[in-house]
This record gives sequence, structure tokens and C-alpha cells, in this order.
Amino acid sequence: MNILLVYAHPEPRSLNGALRDVAVRELEAQGHTVRVSDLYADRWKSEVDRADFPTLTPDARLLPVAASKTAFDTDTLTDDVKAEIEKLLWADALILQFPLWWFAMPAILKGWVDRVFAYGFAYGVGEHSDRRWGDRYGEGTLAGKRAMLIVTAGGWEEHYSPRGVNGPIDDLLFPINHGILYYPGYDVLPPFVAYSVDRLDEAGFEAMAERLRERMRTLATTPPIPYRQQNGGDYRIPSMQLRPGLGDPDAAGFALHLNGAGPAS
Amino acid sequence: MNILLVYAHPEPRSLNGALRDVAVRELEAQGHTVRVSDLYADRWKSEVDRADFPTLTPDARLLPVAASKTAFDTDTLTDDVKAEIEKLLWADALILQFPLWWFAMPAILKGWVDRVFAYGFAYGVGEHSDRRWGDRYGEGTLAGKRAMLIVTAGGWEEHYSPRGVNGPIDDLLFPINHGILYYPGYDVLPPFVAYSVDRLDEAGFEAMAERLRERMRTLATTPPIPYRQQNGGDYRIPSMQLRPGLGDPDAAGFALHLNGAGPAS
Repeated sequence: MNILLVYAHPEPRSLNGALRDVAVRELEAQGHTVRVSDLYADRWKSEVDRADFPTLTPDARLLPVAASKTAFDTDTLTDDVKAEIEKLLWADALILQFPLWWFAMPAILKGWVDRVFAYGFAYGVGEHSDRRWGDRYGEGTLAGKRAMLIVTAGGWEEHYSPRGVNGPIDDLLFPINHGILYYPGYDVLPPFVAYSVDRLDEAGFEAMAERLRERMRTLATTPPIPYRQQNGGDYRIPSMQLRPGLGDPDAAGFALHLNGAGPAS
Repeated sequence: MNILLVYAHPEPRSLNGALRDVAVRELEAQGHTVRVSDLYADRWKSEVDRADFPTLTPDARLLPVAASKTAFDTDTLTDDVKAEIEKLLWADALILQFPLWWFAMPAILKGWVDRVFAYGFAYGVGEHSDRRWGDRYGEGTLAGKRAMLIVTAGGWEEHYSPRGVNGPIDDLLFPINHGILYYPGYDVLPPFVAYSVDRLDEAGFEAMAERLRERMRTLATTPPIPYRQQNGGDYRIPSMQLRPGLGDPDAAGFALHLNGAGPAS
């Protein structure tokens, strides 16, 4: 497979840097071709602003959705964004790797999403009718490809457990897994999460690395999180609400959008 | 009250710009003092990197948590970060205003959080013992102050409803409301959310503006979201898991961390 790893940590000599090297080596050992977008090394620009839309006249209002649509339609997105889109189209699998800062991705990676996931490419795709509400949530430009997160967290695993004070990790990552990756069509694998990373000794690192290698060996075969396809009949159109009777009666919130027993993570 | 509004939209002549003006005018009409951090206008730097820690020697590894702690302890944070911390200490209430991009805040605002919420200021505060796990989640530097979000979303309100395909808005915002605002001590008010903002006519805007004015008039009196205090006895220490028997038996995930019937939103 072709694999794109988008990496967002400012220090190469960090745990994240070490885990990235472990992942890339294992993927290459398995015969995959890997490209890395190292956002800090590339001095990635984080902010969506006027500079992203060079054809916008100086007196025109910057409406990001409309500007993104125009730039994608007229092939006038900036070169850095075009290069990332080309990589996404090339890759059979996308890995986003980052430290969890304030329960979300670092700004530089959010800026990669905000800028690269253009209208017409990652959203605003497909027709709206009484049977379809665009190509999104399981359909779209990136359908048929796989995606997964590699995340490091300073906190304890228990704090992210189903009753932990931070909230369950799967719920904290839902806006990314479902809202950013499943939205444009990716099959999203369960995340690789490393906890308590500020208190890691050599043996702890080696165990973590081996767990990551195993995930890289099974990248092509791990069952994805069974999110429900938007246009598959489970949701009313256009309200996009899950039909009555669907979903575990005990489930609420994000868990409703899982079809069946959940991933085998 | 003293109020800080942190604003993250690249276009002043936008719906966000208009809503910001509505909010500021109403707050001032109520006798409050308002300061605005306009992140795009201020060319806020989004990325946590070496430039944030000028005392770090060139050959030292950048470990963000340790570097943040040292910089806060030695008063060597950068001037832009110090200025924001000063504003947060000055303000009785904090408002974060942003368009919801990919179910989260724009990169520039995430970068404000990543850089301003320093170790020793917003996290890493307080003692750890068998009775306390730091001053966080309802306690901390910013305890006694109020915070709320003003959010615009392109999608329909139904799509963010309890059974909507995007996931419930309160769950999508939990990582911000609970993980970023409640964590350092804020009492967090229910968010103001404007939906379908790309299809808004004049009458729709005026109704939205009046709803926002009402929220600004009641900023000091609206009951906060009743999140559970970490050190109040509801959580086991150190696993920080909600004690058995607590929480609505039908609740799961984020909803467990609400104490009682929920906010009167």
C-alpha cells in the first residue's frame, strides 16, 4: 500500500519522533511505500486566511467556504495545499500522528485539516436529494481508503476510561475520527493511543513500540470502526437524524452512530 | 464585570464579525468592561515551537510540558502569551467566539489555547495526594470566573441534535467546555450556537442577534453546566473514575460527568 503519515510534533528527538520512526520502519519492512508530511519541519502554515486564496480581490470579503470552493474549482489553491491533496489521493492509507494537547490535535495539525480539506474535495461533494445528502460519512473523495490516529497522552489510561474524569478516549476522538476522517469517506481504524507518556521507562517504551508495530502490520486488515453510512438508510433525510428504533437503547450520543457491536480493538 | 472575548475569524465583515459587535455592544450597554483579543488581526502565532521558549538552549530537546513549566516558573514566557495570561486574570468572564470548522475550533484559536494555557497556570496546578489530584476540573487558577462559547456552524441544527448524524453539539463541544474551560477552573455556561449560518437572511440574523443579546444580558446569572468537581468526592483517586452508583444509569460517556438534571439551556 501507499501510506501517508502526517506528523505534528515540534521535536524530532521526542517520544513522538521515536514512535514515528518505529511506524515507518515497520511499514516499509512490510513492503509498503511511506511518505511523511512533517508539519513542523515543513513550517506548515496553520491559519486559514486571505493568503490561501490569491485570486480573491483585495476588497472582497473572505468567506472561507465560498473561497475554498472557488479555489478548488479553479485549481487556484496554494501549492502547499495542492501537494497535500495529491498525497492524500496517492495514499491508500492515512495516519495522523500527534500528541493530545487539551484533548485535541495541536494547532498546526488542525491547520492542516482546515486548509487541505477543501470544499469540493473533502466536503461539499455529491448531490443532495430526497435519497442522498451529499457524499459524506462513509462516502466521498477518499472512500475506499483507510485512516487511523497515533496519539500520545500525558494522562493515565484510567482517566480516559469509560467512567474516567477526562471522558472516554473514543468519545474525545470522535470529532476527529468521525467528523474529520469518516466524513470524506475514510474507513477509520481504532486509534493507537499511548498513555502516561511523561513517565515512560525503556521497558515501557519497548512494549509500546511492539504494540505499534503490530498495528502497522495489521493496517490493511484491522476492521474499521463500524460507523453508520449516512446514505445507507439509517438516517432520515434531510434532518439526518437516526431513525427511531435504531441504535442500542442504552446508547446515547456518539455511540448511537456505531452499527453493531463495535470494533474488535 | 470585566470580560475578555477571544475572537477567531479571518474576516471582520462576516457573520462572526457582526455577532461579535452585537455581543460587545450589549455587554457594554450593561455596564461591563470588554476587551477583545482578535487573533487574526493580532497575527497570533498558532504553533507551539522553540520560539516560545527563548531560554531553551539550541541543543536541548523541546519537551513542551517541561519547557512550559520552566518558562512559567521563571517568567520567561513570550510577551504575547504573558499579555493573554494577564487578560485572563483580569477578566471575570471569558468568551471564546469562533466558527466550527471540522467540528472543532479553528487552528489559530487552538494555538491560543496551546500556547497561553501554560503549565503552572492552566494545568500542573495544585498538590497530588490521596485526597486531591491537582487543582483541576472545577478548581484551579481560573476558579470563580465564568466562560462560554459563541459558535457558528454551517450545518443544520437537526444534524447536531441528540440523534443527528454529526453527533450532539454538547458532546462535540465537551472537549472544549470540559477539557479546556472547566479544567483550569471556569464555571462553563451553555454555549451560544448559531446553525445554518450560510443560509441566513436579514430576519434570521436579527432573531439570532436578539438571542445573543439575551445571553449577554444574562452572562452573570445563567446557571453553569453542572460538571462534577474532580476533588469533590465523586471520583476515585488516583484512577479518577466516577464512583460506582453515580451517574444516570442510562447515561454513558460525557453525560456521566454532569451532576443532576443538566443546564437550563
